[in-house]
Amino acid sequence: MLDTPHLVAGENDDGGEIELRSDTFTLPTPEMLEAAANAPLGDDVYGEDPTVAKLERLAANLLGKAAGCLMPSGTMANLAALLAHCPRGGKAIVGHESDLYVYEAGGASMCGGIVYEPLPNLPDGTISLEDIAEACTVDRADPQIAPPALVSLETPQNRCGGLPLQLDYLAEVAQLTRSHGVALHLDGARIFNASVALGVTPAEIAFYADTVQICLSKGLCAPIGSVLVGDRAIIAQARRMRKMLGGGMRQAGMIAACGIIALTEMTGRLAEDHEKAARLARGLSRLPGVRLTPGPPVTNMVFFRVRDERYTTRSFIAAARRRGVRVEELGHGRIRAVTHAGVGTDAVDRAIKVFAELLAASGR
Amino acid sequence: MLDTPHLVAGENDDGGEIELRSDTFTLPTPEMLEAAANAPLGDDVYGEDPTVAKLERLAANLLGKAAGCLMPSGTMANLAALLAHCPRGGKAIVGHESDLYVYEAGGASMCGGIVYEPLPNLPDGTISLEDIAEACTVDRADPQIAPPALVSLETPQNRCGGLPLQLDYLAEVAQLTRSHGVALHLDGARIFNASVALGVTPAEIAFYADTVQICLSKGLCAPIGSVLVGDRAIIAQARRMRKMLGGGMRQAGMIAACGIIALTEMTGRLAEDHEKAARLARGLSRLPGVRLTPGPPVTNMVFFRVRDERYTTRSFIAAARRRGVRVEELGHGRIRAVTHAGVGTDAVDRAIKVFAELLAASGR
Amino acid sequence: MLDTPHLVAGENDDGGEIELRSDTFTLPTPEMLEAAANAPLGDDVYGEDPTVAKLERLAANLLGKAAGCLMPSGTMANLAALLAHCPRGGKAIVGHESDLYVYEAGGASMCGGIVYEPLPNLPDGTISLEDIAEACTVDRADPQIAPPALVSLETPQNRCGGLPLQLDYLAEVAQLTRSHGVALHLDGARIFNASVALGVTPAEIAFYADTVQICLSKGLCAPIGSVLVGDRAIIAQARRMRKMLGGGMRQAGMIAACGIIALTEMTGRLAEDHEKAARLARGLSRLPGVRLTPGPPVTNMVFFRVRDERYTTRSFIAAARRRGVRVEELGHGRIRAVTHAGVGTDAVDRAIKVFAELLAASGR
Amino acid sequence: MLDTPHLVAGENDDGGEIELRSDTFTLPTPEMLEAAANAPLGDDVYGEDPTVAKLERLAANLLGKAAGCLMPSGTMANLAALLAHCPRGGKAIVGHESDLYVYEAGGASMCGGIVYEPLPNLPDGTISLEDIAEACTVDRADPQIAPPALVSLETPQNRCGGLPLQLDYLAEVAQLTRSHGVALHLDGARIFNASVALGVTPAEIAFYADTVQICLSKGLCAPIGSVLVGDRAIIAQARRMRKMLGGGMRQAGMIAACGIIALTEMTGRLAEDHEKAARLARGLSRLPGVRLTPGPPVTNMVFFRVRDERYTTRSFIAAARRRGVRVEELGHGRIRAVTHAGVGTDAVDRAIKVFAELLAASGR
Repeated sequence: MLDTPHLVAGENDDGGEIELRSDTFTLPTPEMLEAAANAPLGDDVYGEDPTVAKLERLAANLLGKAAGCLMPSGTMANLAALLAHCPRGGKAIVGHESDLYVYEAGGASMCGGIVYEPLPNLPDGTISLEDIAEACTVDRADPQIAPPALVSLETPQNRCGGLPLQLDYLAEVAQLTRSHGVALHLDGARIFNASVALGVTPAEIAFYADTVQICLSKGLCAPIGSVLVGDRAIIAQARRMRKMLGGGMRQAGMIAACGIIALTEMTGRLAEDHEKAARLARGLSRLPGVRLTPGPPVTNMVFFRVRDERYTTRSFIAAARRRGVRVEELGHGRIRAVTHAGVGTDAVDRAIKVFAELLAASGR
Repeated sequence: MLDTPHLVAGENDDGGEIELRSDTFTLPTPEMLEAAANAPLGDDVYGEDPTVAKLERLAANLLGKAAGCLMPSGTMANLAALLAHCPRGGKAIVGHESDLYVYEAGGASMCGGIVYEPLPNLPDGTISLEDIAEACTVDRADPQIAPPALVSLETPQNRCGGLPLQLDYLAEVAQLTRSHGVALHLDGARIFNASVALGVTPAEIAFYADTVQICLSKGLCAPIGSVLVGDRAIIAQARRMRKMLGGGMRQAGMIAACGIIALTEMTGRLAEDHEKAARLARGLSRLPGVRLTPGPPVTNMVFFRVRDERYTTRSFIAAARRRGVRVEELGHGRIRAVTHAGVGTDAVDRAIKVFAELLAASGR
Repeated sequence: MLDTPHLVAGENDDGGEIELRSDTFTLPTPEMLEAAANAPLGDDVYGEDPTVAKLERLAANLLGKAAGCLMPSGTMANLAALLAHCPRGGKAIVGHESDLYVYEAGGASMCGGIVYEPLPNLPDGTISLEDIAEACTVDRADPQIAPPALVSLETPQNRCGGLPLQLDYLAEVAQLTRSHGVALHLDGARIFNASVALGVTPAEIAFYADTVQICLSKGLCAPIGSVLVGDRAIIAQARRMRKMLGGGMRQAGMIAACGIIALTEMTGRLAEDHEKAARLARGLSRLPGVRLTPGPPVTNMVFFRVRDERYTTRSFIAAARRRGVRVEELGHGRIRAVTHAGVGTDAVDRAIKVFAELLAASGR
Repeated sequence: MLDTPHLVAGENDDGGEIELRSDTFTLPTPEMLEAAANAPLGDDVYGEDPTVAKLERLAANLLGKAAGCLMPSGTMANLAALLAHCPRGGKAIVGHESDLYVYEAGGASMCGGIVYEPLPNLPDGTISLEDIAEACTVDRADPQIAPPALVSLETPQNRCGGLPLQLDYLAEVAQLTRSHGVALHLDGARIFNASVALGVTPAEIAFYADTVQICLSKGLCAPIGSVLVGDRAIIAQARRMRKMLGGGMRQAGMIAACGIIALTEMTGRLAEDHEKAARLARGLSRLPGVRLTPGPPVTNMVFFRVRDERYTTRSFIAAARRRGVRVEELGHGRIRAVTHAGVGTDAVDRAIKVFAELLAASGR
């Protein structure tokens, strides 16, 4: 757990709450706060913040792309990417369980007149190549048809158990999209978790995509921000969209300074989160009525269902919360617990204990 | 000039550049950096960042409104306000010289299907009541007509010399809009400058509007952010729009902490900026070929034209820049110089000297 | 081929083409042409065309609704309905095989910022009640979620074999949508075919929906136009949308006059089309390599696949065309043949003969 | 006045109403009705209606363009043109008194995310070249600025007295737009009236524009329809937009047949309408309290104001209507009277008499 002045009173200390709802709850580290306080700044709307420029170059390099653009959120990074790739009336092919489709308020339709075409996500987070091929194979001369402009994948796929996509799958999709003249966007909000899980560099994953969105504020602990990377032309377009959406920020170097620490100092620690998730999953799997779904975690997310006649999903979550453990429902009866820098091994064990108590046979 | 670690190398020190392009170049103060490093934080997308909540309450109170919502920029605050007020296909009546119309990339049309109806701004920044009345007086049953949904005013009006709108004018517009069932939005990016210039509280100005946008990052020196204030229902709508646009930020308390200092410690110093602007204007008005337009400044902006056969507007600006003074063209041959916390009285005098040298008779 | 241009009777006789691609190819009857030539007319954009008003009342009465609005196409009738029902950023829940989603160019996203949520159509054209319920059950306070605003069904469902929806299914969906405060739109382009197939009145089908779109130009033989019906308020909204989209037509009574004949004289003949479709299906089902899918027709559409190593789907269609029989591919290897007033029983038998010849064993 | 079976009961006969509200009230001629009844037809959504194809070629030839596309209305023709020319977020520069801006419900913003930039129309219907040049001269690299994509002019300009634009003005605007890479669209709803007034061919006017919209249903008496003409690529784009908007019509040849008569038989008679307008204007100009504005008519529209203490504009119009003369208010106290095929010289004289009676000194 972090030892920083940012601790919200009562949270995350030894006697406090155990926050497993999301890794978005991570707090900036002392190094980040120091970096923020010392970063050279400028007006980034004029393109003059040197710290932002440094972060954007760093992110682009890490992902093997030519350019990057800092955004206030992953939602905007995804939205700006879709706006940059897809013309008005074009189709964005997305997974029906992707965060971009489920949790981003339909922004591409609303702001861009883009048509979402959600295709089924398989349990491993992929969309079948056949489905993608079929969605891409349309008569573009037919004015009845909204023409496909982009395929978006997510890795690791949050709502599919945090599973990372395999490189060969990405390669096959990339070949498919390229052959149809369709862009490939990757929502890599947690791409560093995927990188650790697969044992490859982030650039090896990003290689297949035209644009990649990475979040600084999840497991990497930065307070705010995502970076969209891609080639220069598409990033220039996305930067224009950022301004229109209201994502141009003045002395954004204060945020970017934290992001630089995130990318340089914090990626190495994600393996710990995966170990804690595995530990939590092992503990949960031994409890009566608990079923891991889709199975043991591969990254930092544990999904499970509870079958116990004393609880509904909601009442179980509420009962855990009363005992200091916060988890959340994510998709129709599934409970998600996410490990991160704010949750130590002790906290994981305490959480298991709380769940065990809740599910203990009550003398029945 | 600020004495902070944020100084971009070579800028703003005594021998350095004099930055008069905009007050958006202000850097966060040491108190802000300290506040950012010590603020209690939470995940604001979950509504759990206490520092953000504190800032939003503070801003709402200062403006006399029930609720506030932190946004990453004034552009997003304005856009979210328009989206919250105007249905798809509704008209937003705006000044043709307003920043919202000129500099915000047409976001309301693009993201909301809203029709801008720009009306002429008079030299004092107002739109004539007759024009507003005429634009509001339409047959709403006629499907040929995009129905008016909102009037937006700006105070002080940047492109009209930074002039603040008078309270009685605001009162008249408010009466008009109310009688037509049309919302009134106020782009109060620099409302505290207007407040100082008029000798009234910000709440006295905001009183007439349904929503007001205030910037934390201009004369008030915060690095990032604007707050939109209004009643609870409209702010709830705007908050929803913020998420869709990608303005939901995680540990936004880091930004909000600076904003709290901006609102509590920095409004008192704006009078200095106005004095420096007046000083700069006096100096400029004595130079050959310089004409203040529309006249002496009332807030922190000096607008002027240069008539000298040796220069175009652009070459004059470039020549000043080579001598360390940065100003910018703003609207068809007009030059804008903005005073702020990063420009001391000495710097103002040096700038006058530079302009004087550039315009000195060269023995012709 | 036709002897006199408009004559439906006499088309597809022994020397001519047999047009089975769609019932949209039907030509206006002599009665329609006479009605068009004699109809009292006015400027319908001013709401003064008496023939249009008469058609709109007639359609509304037939469907049991309070009001109707003539549109130039079913596409616009559907689009205007979605625009009238759904706010910007709201979700329209549609079948993934519905014409509205597949063939209408994504208009609701493009013109209205509406998010399509396509759900799987079952083979009988329904969407499972569970899927609808799940899509409707969202936390409307959560700004991450595009809120559902409308469910659209189609009957008969073209791409699901032209099967009509059962009344009890419609009743269940209506109960569901009402309980969630979501509108129910019915794409009843061929609702009169559904009515004949189910043995109920069109009003009994339309009863469950808030708005219904009916086409005048398919089996009913009118040259142009659809009518959207619903309550007065929603039709007033749709009428406004029609103007904005460019569907306001001047002396539209000329079209409406044909539509009046369509609704009063032509619905009774649809049973013939269903008989001819059944006859065609029986003939096809006996041919080697032909499989009806999903099975025998219930309305006027026959869908089948051909498995014969000598042909691809496309080459089979081309071969039939060379012999004077026009059918089309509709969805991934399926061939559609539609019966209508322009195809007599003889023509059906000739078509069967042509297909038989194409598939005859060639001495292999 | 027409002698056709279309006469709305009681209208336009000798004892009937004199319809001067608009030339959109013209009824189809007997030749049109006959042509409609005999035209070869097909399904135009499949591109197979020969009469539509013939009309589109005819219109394109008349205007000197390569291609044409039939639309159900001028509104859709303008909207499809704007959608074809302007990307999402681009600016359409229009006259603030243009029908396209005032009467077409903001469709380009709503359906296309296009930003209208209305510039002042001078009394002669032009927009000053300086204003156009200034609006086109923006820094396209600046993401704050919505980039200009199109200039739209209207000739004759309805709300500016029906005055036609001069060829040399069109030439200058075309040179300007071309030099800025901006498209030029011409709303030529009544371009044949302009052609007659200027003594040039329609093609000489259309020459300067990239796309031109012409209405078949105004002075040319066709019941329904407009044609958009331009080069092949832009018309292909507009045709796609037509489908999305719902303007694809099945046996549209019935409409097109009337349009062919309109273009071949009816343009020659427009000079009569202009003479009748001149006659009406002369009569009106002699009446007390009547002021022609902007002056004598050049085409078929007479605009005037009435100053008489016994009437408001509305009550004067109502009084005329009670005596069988229909005119309408068009723009802030101005009354418009439009001559057309449905108004003979006798009717014009009777209308003058009615106005004279209304304004006669009543013994005061």
